[in-house]
Amino acid sequence: MLDYKLLEALATVIETGGFERAGLTLGLSQSAVSQRIKLLEARLGQPVLVRHPSLKATAAGQRLLNHVQQVQLLERDLRHTLPALTNNRTRLRIALNADSLATWWAQAIGDFCQRENLLLDLVIEDQDIGLRRMREGDVAACLCSSDQPVAGARCTGLGRMQYRALARPDYIGRHFPDAGDLTAFRQAPAIVFGPHDQLQHRFLASQGYHGQFPFHLCPSSEGFVRLARAGIGYGMIPDHQGQEWLASGDLADLAPGVSVDVDLYWHYWRHGGDFMERLTQTLVQQASSLLAVDR
Amino acid sequence: MLDYKLLEALATVIETGGFERAGLTLGLSQSAVSQRIKLLEARLGQPVLVRHPSLKATAAGQRLLNHVQQVQLLERDLRHTLPALTNNRTRLRIALNADSLATWWAQAIGDFCQRENLLLDLVIEDQDIGLRRMREGDVAACLCSSDQPVAGARCTGLGRMQYRALARPDYIGRHFPDAGDLTAFRQAPAIVFGPHDQLQHRFLASQGYHGQFPFHLCPSSEGFVRLARAGIGYGMIPDHQGQEWLASGDLADLAPGVSVDVDLYWHYWRHGGDFMERLTQTLVQQASSLLAVDR
Repeated sequence: MLDYKLLEALATVIETGGFERAGLTLGLSQSAVSQRIKLLEARLGQPVLVRHPSLKATAAGQRLLNHVQQVQLLERDLRHTLPALTNNRTRLRIALNADSLATWWAQAIGDFCQRENLLLDLVIEDQDIGLRRMREGDVAACLCSSDQPVAGARCTGLGRMQYRALARPDYIGRHFPDAGDLTAFRQAPAIVFGPHDQLQHRFLASQGYHGQFPFHLCPSSEGFVRLARAGIGYGMIPDHQGQEWLASGDLADLAPGVSVDVDLYWHYWRHGGDFMERLTQTLVQQASSLLAVDR
Repeated sequence: MLDYKLLEALATVIETGGFERAGLTLGLSQSAVSQRIKLLEARLGQPVLVRHPSLKATAAGQRLLNHVQQVQLLERDLRHTLPALTNNRTRLRIALNADSLATWWAQAIGDFCQRENLLLDLVIEDQDIGLRRMREGDVAACLCSSDQPVAGARCTGLGRMQYRALARPDYIGRHFPDAGDLTAFRQAPAIVFGPHDQLQHRFLASQGYHGQFPFHLCPSSEGFVRLARAGIGYGMIPDHQGQEWLASGDLADLAPGVSVDVDLYWHYWRHGGDFMERLTQTLVQQASSLLAVDR
């Protein structure tokens, strides 16, 4: 068998981002962690880590990480059937989109975490990067809008988030005095999440507008809603966040009846064992009440 | 004078993260952008960009960016006194901490953006990285907890955010049945923002606990509060977000009367001109009512 002490050292260095922090987590000195990595590299005959420009696994290191992650999931199952083995908690690193984390995610997974003693290690990523980190063995699962599973993984549809163009009523009155006047989009500042955000473009296309538009960039779901409520722009806000402010009258719908929908898929390792199956079942079930689904 | 067409091409490539996107922004072909960069490099006798592993400015390129940014700020002042010159809006890239963006920031800056036709380009960064991006000329200002100005910049205290350890009442009852029993911290899952988050450690130290503790990692202010409300952990939540849930009874204070405070400082270029001065005055004034300040 492989020497899992060495593999665990590698996984912990990558997870914590450094030798010193890995040592703290493992209860080892920094030099002991470093020696384990060196030994692993000597046995493998090639490096598993590159130090510059930032600490990351080599291609070989990534294959090892991927393996360690699956072994850890299987160990989780074993501990479930043999509770006396250890009372350690599982930690699962999951990549997900910022809007899910800011809205329905906690409700969907809260009870499961308590029941199963699961600790979450959440990372916010665009779907392309989230799936790449999964291929690289850096995350165990990925929630995103791609329906293309990575090799060795499964992909399950959970439902969809619906976004509407919301702004403060006085903002709409000031910037969009004439409903249907497309030239208003050229002047009215939008709020977009980041340079890769396609929601705004999809909304404008649905309105028949394809030109330039001024925009604020705000990479925070909560900050996004707050900027809209402060009256400095309109933006695509998920129903989970928008409904409260529509009801209170703080925000209004710029294009009533128009929503831009984003389908969400859950990607997870095929050999993730019973624990991953239970987590997936929980998410599918919770999402059916928390997300919009086709009936 | 320098050829600002070339400098603008450089700034736009860095700002948009690519030649193609820079071309779209500037209304040029990708190859025209590329030629401007090449010409700039030929005149300078050294590269201004490195392409691998990711697109970034060289040390020389950074000095140019830093200069362009200050010139753009001064141009903003000029347009203010000569409105006919152009009706372009200013875009300002600002690095700030996630919790400010998720809480008081929008209220502080909302009216200013409308009044001054300012578009925000917000980036969330830890303080060390935010200040480094400022030194590198990539952001025009930085809101963080360091009071050490970078060379050429000023630094002004705005006030402080106060964090309390909050959790669902049933979570506290289950994990902390005996007030003052420090061993409970060894078992009760915390929620922390990221591996560099020091708030949790400062809180535990204030309680006299210095050992290991289990934790979820959640790099989203809004997601953080939602995980706490879902009952899967306790976490350090800013008063701006916590008060609503304390009032409703969804969350309770694990250590009543104990807060961990984070001082916030505004860093901006000394030669940023009148526009930056007005923005700074606005933030100082707004923060005095939105943040805790020493009287």
